[in-house]
Amino acid sequence: MALVVKKFGGSSLATPQHIKNIAKRIVEDKRNKKDNIVIVVSATGDTTDDLISLAKQIHPNPPHRELDMLISTGEVVSSALMAMAIDNLGEQAVSLTGPQIGIMTDSIHTRASIRKVKTERINKELEKGKIVVVAGFQGKDDCEEITTLGRGGSDTTAIAIAIALKADVCEIFTDVEGVYTADPRIVPDAKKIKIISYEEMLEFASSGAKVMQTRATELASKYDLKYHVRSSFTKTEGTIIMKEIDSMEKVVVRGVVAAKDEARVTIHDIPNKPGVAAYIFGKLGKEKINVDMIIQSSAQKDKSDISFTVNEDILPKTLEVMEKAKEHLKAGKVSSDSNIGKIGVVGVGMRTHSGVAGKMFEALAREDINIEMISTSEIRISCVIRRDLCDKAMKVLHKEFELEK
Amino acid sequence: MALVVKKFGGSSLATPQHIKNIAKRIVEDKRNKKDNIVIVVSATGDTTDDLISLAKQIHPNPPHRELDMLISTGEVVSSALMAMAIDNLGEQAVSLTGPQIGIMTDSIHTRASIRKVKTERINKELEKGKIVVVAGFQGKDDCEEITTLGRGGSDTTAIAIAIALKADVCEIFTDVEGVYTADPRIVPDAKKIKIISYEEMLEFASSGAKVMQTRATELASKYDLKYHVRSSFTKTEGTIIMKEIDSMEKVVVRGVVAAKDEARVTIHDIPNKPGVAAYIFGKLGKEKINVDMIIQSSAQKDKSDISFTVNEDILPKTLEVMEKAKEHLKAGKVSSDSNIGKIGVVGVGMRTHSGVAGKMFEALAREDINIEMISTSEIRISCVIRRDLCDKAMKVLHKEFELEK
Repeated sequence: MALVVKKFGGSSLATPQHIKNIAKRIVEDKRNKKDNIVIVVSATGDTTDDLISLAKQIHPNPPHRELDMLISTGEVVSSALMAMAIDNLGEQAVSLTGPQIGIMTDSIHTRASIRKVKTERINKELEKGKIVVVAGFQGKDDCEEITTLGRGGSDTTAIAIAIALKADVCEIFTDVEGVYTADPRIVPDAKKIKIISYEEMLEFASSGAKVMQTRATELASKYDLKYHVRSSFTKTEGTIIMKEIDSMEKVVVRGVVAAKDEARVTIHDIPNKPGVAAYIFGKLGKEKINVDMIIQSSAQKDKSDISFTVNEDILPKTLEVMEKAKEHLKAGKVSSDSNIGKIGVVGVGMRTHSGVAGKMFEALAREDINIEMISTSEIRISCVIRRDLCDKAMKVLHKEFELEK
Repeated sequence: MALVVKKFGGSSLATPQHIKNIAKRIVEDKRNKKDNIVIVVSATGDTTDDLISLAKQIHPNPPHRELDMLISTGEVVSSALMAMAIDNLGEQAVSLTGPQIGIMTDSIHTRASIRKVKTERINKELEKGKIVVVAGFQGKDDCEEITTLGRGGSDTTAIAIAIALKADVCEIFTDVEGVYTADPRIVPDAKKIKIISYEEMLEFASSGAKVMQTRATELASKYDLKYHVRSSFTKTEGTIIMKEIDSMEKVVVRGVVAAKDEARVTIHDIPNKPGVAAYIFGKLGKEKINVDMIIQSSAQKDKSDISFTVNEDILPKTLEVMEKAKEHLKAGKVSSDSNIGKIGVVGVGMRTHSGVAGKMFEALAREDINIEMISTSEIRISCVIRRDLCDKAMKVLHKEFELEK
């Protein structure tokens, strides 16, 4: 008897009929395979956005603690409805909130991190033969305060529970069939990837492929939990995300990714002295602003410019922080450009194969796509380009690296 | 510095603008009177009904435990939104769920009873100067299961918290201005009652005046908590509900009440033997079906009929139970009539004044209103009549007892 954790996202639960369909699938699995099943659910459809919009009608900048109280209800609603749907098909089910289970987190509201998952309650219910339905995305801190894990937090819940329970299988059901060599809406002959390493998956996620939250994959990687991303609408096998194995290195480039929600910020004419970068990125870190690429350029001998990219939706906050930093540093001015995009190629094979960067830059140059910033990791090369050229660049690179084959 | 508990119902919180208006009123009170304030909120507008209808789309008869998980979210949403609205006006607020506070209940899902209210958490927040916003209607049992208190449960939450905290004032804000001598929509010259005893209030509630749940008033009465029912839309004083004082007896009839959601059930030809009534009402009690009036009539020597009234919405369930009881008792048949209504007059003065019943029956007879069943308590006389005559009877009795004066 295997222990299986299955996570279903909001688009899979959008209507009562969706919920009934998923329940049917779960109950069939329970009866055919005799598995012990734990379901993790997100809020249905647009619930979280609707709740946030309600909050914004009342407070332009709602206290995060209260926002967590509010939005955590969305997943509780789905979990109760899912338990009802399963009960209606004749199997026993029990919904549990994050606090009820004891999904213990730190106290950083709206993006808390899981510290520990208690297993007593879930195990007790599984022993009774029940299907356990967990409200994802939420936990509590040591003071019994309700916390949420940030967007995509239900993925993290599922991975954390699978690790804590030592589950045999962890399946992330979503509205796509898996991870692709490129966005299939842009590159029609993109191929579904059967197996991908944690490292590649992380690069995919941080470079714009929204299949899975970075944090969830990091957690899976840390505890070496193999998981399976697949469609909630079909029974086709999806993509397995697991520890790197030797054969993976044979593929040089696993896929092409693009992000069109980046923005670049530049602080000009910063007097050169030690600790300048530390000061800037320390301030950003304190505000929990994630910075992606960084470039420092020396325009003059005693002054330099620092540019970096951030997600577009935190651009206003970033500029606010940088205006203050500018004063402190006695720098020139702060400018920004939100018309940029990021294109990247990812593959663990790059570690052992050289020439990927050259090939990439050449292909882009051939198509007159100007590269404005470059960043690389062991297994990824990314370039900032004009946003409207991203789709074109993706097609060019997909073809260049023969990913359609 | 007084400690004040204020409860706001769903119609007072129907939209974000409603919530902001209430928050403004609370913040003004906080600043003018320097009170310590605990707010208890219901779910906004039709939220509870909407959630139940969602559940019914998934399960014709949802498990009560899951129903509690589902519907308890409504009050959590309101409490978080109210805390945000108060914060937005510059006062500190914190929302708390029933489980967070430790509103401990029994395990009877969808109509749990409060056993204990822990005060540590609320007091801790009040000491920090915060306005505490409590999600009404909910608690948890000893196994950390979420429970709800049944319709109107937020009133009970407010009363229970006021008792536990030894509050100086407990105000129940609602969409009416208080308790009236009759329903003002039917009797235009009905008067608002300034002070009413717990006993009278209980008779009002159980006889159809929906201002306040019976259970909440019973609780207030048990612990002698004076409370104030008033409008959330105006600042007019409402009705004070308190322990009976001597002067109250001067008024013979406090008001006229009518209930149009009753139904009568009759079991015919029950063989006469001891324990028959105990059997019938024992079965009903076990199913938590509340019975109102009961009449036993001896049609023949060895057989009798038993009639009783129940709330119309539990009629199907009641008939189901009675069909089984009929078999067991070897009775004739079970019939029902849901075209009945109940009209009553209430007043603690009846204890010391005689002739109220005669006056009431006479007035109804004069208007050709036939009385089908009668029940009396020390402070109430109720009659079952045809449902379509209820409004007329209310006007007649209001005039007869000169309540407009």
